[in-house]
Amino acid sequence: MARKPAPKTASTTAKKPIGTLPERDVKTIGKLVGLSEMVVKRGMSGKDPVIHIPLRTKSNTSWNRKKGILEMGDAKADRPLFDLKTAKQFMQTMLHASTIKDLIEQGKTSSLRGVFYRAKHTVAGTKENTFDTQDESDPILEDLEVSLGALREELHIFASTRGNLVGNITIIDKGDEINARRMGSGGWGIPSIVEPSALQFGKCEAKFVLHVEKDTVWQRFNEDRFWEKHNCILTHGGGQPPRGCRRLLQRLNQELKLPIICVLDNDPWGHYIYSVIKQGSISLAFESSRLAIPDAKFLGIRAKDYEECELDDGVKITLTDNDIKRANEIAAYPWFAENRPWQKEIAQLLKNGFKMEVEAMLQKDISYITEEYVPQRLKAKDWLE
Amino acid sequence: MARKPAPKTASTTAKKPIGTLPERDVKTIGKLVGLSEMVVKRGMSGKDPVIHIPLRTKSNTSWNRKKGILEMGDAKADRPLFDLKTAKQFMQTMLHASTIKDLIEQGKTSSLRGVFYRAKHTVAGTKENTFDTQDESDPILEDLEVSLGALREELHIFASTRGNLVGNITIIDKGDEINARRMGSGGWGIPSIVEPSALQFGKCEAKFVLHVEKDTVWQRFNEDRFWEKHNCILTHGGGQPPRGCRRLLQRLNQELKLPIICVLDNDPWGHYIYSVIKQGSISLAFESSRLAIPDAKFLGIRAKDYEECELDDGVKITLTDNDIKRANEIAAYPWFAENRPWQKEIAQLLKNGFKMEVEAMLQKDISYITEEYVPQRLKAKDWLE
Repeated sequence: MARKPAPKTASTTAKKPIGTLPERDVKTIGKLVGLSEMVVKRGMSGKDPVIHIPLRTKSNTSWNRKKGILEMGDAKADRPLFDLKTAKQFMQTMLHASTIKDLIEQGKTSSLRGVFYRAKHTVAGTKENTFDTQDESDPILEDLEVSLGALREELHIFASTRGNLVGNITIIDKGDEINARRMGSGGWGIPSIVEPSALQFGKCEAKFVLHVEKDTVWQRFNEDRFWEKHNCILTHGGGQPPRGCRRLLQRLNQELKLPIICVLDNDPWGHYIYSVIKQGSISLAFESSRLAIPDAKFLGIRAKDYEECELDDGVKITLTDNDIKRANEIAAYPWFAENRPWQKEIAQLLKNGFKMEVEAMLQKDISYITEEYVPQRLKAKDWLE
Repeated sequence: MARKPAPKTASTTAKKPIGTLPERDVKTIGKLVGLSEMVVKRGMSGKDPVIHIPLRTKSNTSWNRKKGILEMGDAKADRPLFDLKTAKQFMQTMLHASTIKDLIEQGKTSSLRGVFYRAKHTVAGTKENTFDTQDESDPILEDLEVSLGALREELHIFASTRGNLVGNITIIDKGDEINARRMGSGGWGIPSIVEPSALQFGKCEAKFVLHVEKDTVWQRFNEDRFWEKHNCILTHGGGQPPRGCRRLLQRLNQELKLPIICVLDNDPWGHYIYSVIKQGSISLAFESSRLAIPDAKFLGIRAKDYEECELDDGVKITLTDNDIKRANEIAAYPWFAENRPWQKEIAQLLKNGFKMEVEAMLQKDISYITEEYVPQRLKAKDWLE
């Protein structure tokens, strides 16, 4: 099939002179150039170019008890160019490094999928693709992140966004002053990149952050203007909060000293979400110092609530075998294993034999959760840590 | 297991006097009271109370060629109280009607799951639950919607939210003035309820709406400030846009006369999303007049783009058997069947044998989609309708 002459499609996005780039970007470009110079240098001197990639495995992850976060260890894997097993990955790593350099020089960001497509093409003169699926591409980007010691945001790559925010704070995002007190029923969408270079905090009256699991619960709290009555910031992360949401919570906690108080489901998934917010996750252990919030609090839903709040049997959802297995796994996490209140909490969940969702509280009254449950627990400081 | 004495949990959410409620709410309460009066009246006169529920099936859906939307027909099903097959559903319908009356009187809204939990309890003196799963509950709410002729939003029920908005417009949401020109990288979260009583339009310079499929593509357009350069509003609906997003697009189209221009994937799913935006869907046919946008335009991605834009083979994703089946089904929809350009478009997709995502355009250049592809197509009015 003959190709028609194509319209002119030359790139109109010029590179910015390196002197005009932010300091952080200059530093990242330095790391990328260092990587390619190492390859050239070793090649010229007849040595095999090798990249050393820190291992993101469970065995190379350890819990730092003092800091209260999960950390990545020192183990590394070699990725030599002249090895049939790793040559393709080596090429992929260099391709992505090149895309990232372009992104930084143009002052632009891209999604994971966008970077994948930038690099995905047929290798000239062959039928081989540089990449076949995004599953090959995402880990290579993480490799670059850990081996360069640069955050994904520093590599100008963003993730899907989930989560909204409303409350007594002003946020400055790319120069736009966002008054989170006047966001109507929709709220402000929490972006993927919330580093200080992109996003700063303005005036903040709020005394804490209430983080809820789901958008529907968030809507209940927003409609009842909980954040106004209790002078706080209200966020949700659409289930397991994405990096942007976690990082924003951590910055609110560290920079503005706001306690982060979570209202999640009474089930192993809710406990796991809390665990990730608090201590970090294995796959992102190299990011824990930037994402984890060791003093985050778990206010509810608690296993005792069925009794204490006099709920009807209608709220019970029977635990599945997988729930029981997950609950036991989570109970064995080192930070939970040494924590007596959490051991009691998980034991009570298992004893109950059922789980409960935050929305179960609506059974009592549409605003029971916002007007009684959360205010009473806040007042009594009745939460798990 | 003995219960501890529970803390006082009486509802603090008082009903508002009926005279203070908005006219629309008074009307909806009138409908709900009418329903229960019918039940009482028939019961007192020894007749079997019956609710008539319009059918939401394919056979009761027809395409209104003149209006260009899908519509629900007149067929109804009876739901008598004194029938073993329908008695439970009858009870469920009345329970939900009662919850909705409470919501309206309290001036509150709830999620589908919230309404489910409000009604879910053990029937006194039995081990029977009023509802077992939410799958039973949601259709009952739709039944009420169609049989009362009241929109879900009029019943004070909201859906999950997806989708963000940024651009040259001011929106007033529950009294908050939202300047969509200053939303940073996050954008404003499109709420679930966007009826004129909750949400009004302020100043709007924008000349059209560019609606893209995914948040990651939306981020690309927002970062390149496409909406500023091209004086428009930029939205996404996180895949298949939820009701709130569709309704907002329709209001922007009908009230502000803004063309709605869609940038979706070149695959049957992208075509289906467009079809729903334009003509409505079978399951929500009773809502089409409020949701469908018959003059919405499909700008891309087009099957011809692989050639016209000189893309590399890397963008090709082979059609699956299911894709081919769906493409043929969509080609047979009455509004596409009579539309020659669309017949050609789907035939070309099938001939290509591959699909392409919007993000494939990033292969050429990170901002090719925002700086060349969409501007050129807009200028040439090169789109499908």
